Amino acid sequence: MRREKKHSKRDNLERAGENEIIEHLIKRHADSHPALKKGIGDDAAVWLPAGAREFWLATTDMLVEEVDFRREWTTPRELGRKSIAVNLSDLGAMGAKPRFFTIAIGLPANETKRWIWKFYDGLTSCGGENGAILVGGDLSSSDKITISITAFGESENRKVLYRSGGRPGDLLYVTGTLGKSAAGLRLLQQGYIRSRSGSRREALRAHRTPDPRCAVGQWLAQNGYARCMMDISDGISTDLPRMCAASGTDAEIFEEKIPVFAESVQWGCDPLELALSGGEDFELLFAVPRAKKHILENMPPGFPPITHIGNMVEGNGKVWITDDEATRRPLPAGGFDHFSS
Amino acid sequence: MRREKKHSKRDNLERAGENEIIEHLIKRHADSHPALKKGIGDDAAVWLPAGAREFWLATTDMLVEEVDFRREWTTPRELGRKSIAVNLSDLGAMGAKPRFFTIAIGLPANETKRWIWKFYDGLTSCGGENGAILVGGDLSSSDKITISITAFGESENRKVLYRSGGRPGDLLYVTGTLGKSAAGLRLLQQGYIRSRSGSRREALRAHRTPDPRCAVGQWLAQNGYARCMMDISDGISTDLPRMCAASGTDAEIFEEKIPVFAESVQWGCDPLELALSGGEDFELLFAVPRAKKHILENMPPGFPPITHIGNMVEGNGKVWITDDEATRRPLPAGGFDHFSS
Repeated sequence: MRREKKHSKRDNLERAGENEIIEHLIKRHADSHPALKKGIGDDAAVWLPAGAREFWLATTDMLVEEVDFRREWTTPRELGRKSIAVNLSDLGAMGAKPRFFTIAIGLPANETKRWIWKFYDGLTSCGGENGAILVGGDLSSSDKITISITAFGESENRKVLYRSGGRPGDLLYVTGTLGKSAAGLRLLQQGYIRSRSGSRREALRAHRTPDPRCAVGQWLAQNGYARCMMDISDGISTDLPRMCAASGTDAEIFEEKIPVFAESVQWGCDPLELALSGGEDFELLFAVPRAKKHILENMPPGFPPITHIGNMVEGNGKVWITDDEATRRPLPAGGFDHFSS
Repeated sequence: MRREKKHSKRDNLERAGENEIIEHLIKRHADSHPALKKGIGDDAAVWLPAGAREFWLATTDMLVEEVDFRREWTTPRELGRKSIAVNLSDLGAMGAKPRFFTIAIGLPANETKRWIWKFYDGLTSCGGENGAILVGGDLSSSDKITISITAFGESENRKVLYRSGGRPGDLLYVTGTLGKSAAGLRLLQQGYIRSRSGSRREALRAHRTPDPRCAVGQWLAQNGYARCMMDISDGISTDLPRMCAASGTDAEIFEEKIPVFAESVQWGCDPLELALSGGEDFELLFAVPRAKKHILENMPPGFPPITHIGNMVEGNGKVWITDDEATRRPLPAGGFDHFSS
């Protein structure tokens, strides 16, 4: 849920934003260990246990009631599914196979057993479908439901895709449709908890139970098509600059190419705006060398569609968008950021 | 912080308690994987990555403002230290070496940068002292500060100590002093945020910045002295029955042998009660075969004192306590439980 814009002159997190905090942590607290391949700053940490055949990966996410979800808008089973899906999405974005996960959960003391049993059912069923087993956790009391999951994955043939590694000239692709989850959130805000309409149901489903793109992420990593990859959790206007900064490039994208969820116009949304900065799509964003653009022809059946949205170009972290009239302008960072909006 | 006793007839978590929830999860959601040695139900999950020389371990804890700590009672640096210490304690209790950790943190949007920089300083300094590096995390907004850390460790020579494995006749030991952290909490509740008195300072320090017992835990695992081990996070009246249940034994302990923090009587505490059920001591509890009771003589200098508090006996999870008058009675489970009190 997007928080209200606030103008504060205090030296606080709202002004700092998530990117600044992460940069501070990398500068001040990043440390090295012989086994560690990638620490802070990518979708997951990567290490090679001594003697092991494969890399192991770990990623953490937190969902907070009334910030990331509302109890009235989701069933406990759906919330369980989403809680693990957002973590598995990070593993998928590195091309890794999910293996295990732990969950720390803060619950109001008067929460019913029925609620929590159903939550865990959703959690472990989505985990299981993607190969991840619940191996431990912690339980605390808190006023608002707070869910923190750490998921562990294993590489295949030591092939892992980072955010870095893209080069000028690479083609940028995304999986699926962008802005669908945000369109679903807009429906919930308008009071549509359930709907019989096909497109409304689709949007609600995308928001409440996103599918982690693990299979396609693994396929891209194994086949060597992609040079870098990440998942789109905050919207491409926030996430693409992160990939560009990590790769040391700029990117140019084209409005007309972006796979928007056009149906959302029916309930008053701007599909392009939601696609750029709606957030929570959990689709994959990746860069493919021009020589491998036959990728589309080789996709196995059953995978989500992928779309070429633009290219990487020389630069240092900026994104340019070209509209229908061929006007090129910088894309303002406007995706979801927990501490600056 | 101990929550108020409530009497509710609803089918809720308060009545269920943490043990019942964990049992449900084990029964319904425990799953197997060739690499997994131990899932839900011990201090940490344990797995052997394919080809690896050592086991890897993972453990998660959550700290919630106004449940586990109060902002007025701790500096951000102390809170950072404690947040990682409680996780490292779980790794120490398995005999593992801490390696990496991730943190998911929910913070109020108006939190100052100064606060969070100091929090991370405490976090990474305690982590670093124990060999654990920050490798990733997530940042969310929430009304109350909510901290969830997952720590990863590595075994040495594949020697890991579980809660199970104790046998009738084994001697039960604890490290350090019990009830000191709870005595510190009592001081805070009485308004003593700082104190010049030696014993008060010691109690406040035990509560605010507990030392994880990683070194002694590793030593016990390496030397084969201990048959089973866990950390005392909820008080021995709660934790010892858990170790007994896992080992398929009962335990008998002796009031006069328990290393209580006697000084707390000065500020109105019952040192024995706090030692049994105060919680948050993060000391180690372990069982040693009778043939190895020379353990005390072989302790390297600089380790915390260890105390023989009783023995494992035939049974199935109960704890018996013998008082000064040699009267033996069942020890009621009374340690801290987030959902039943």
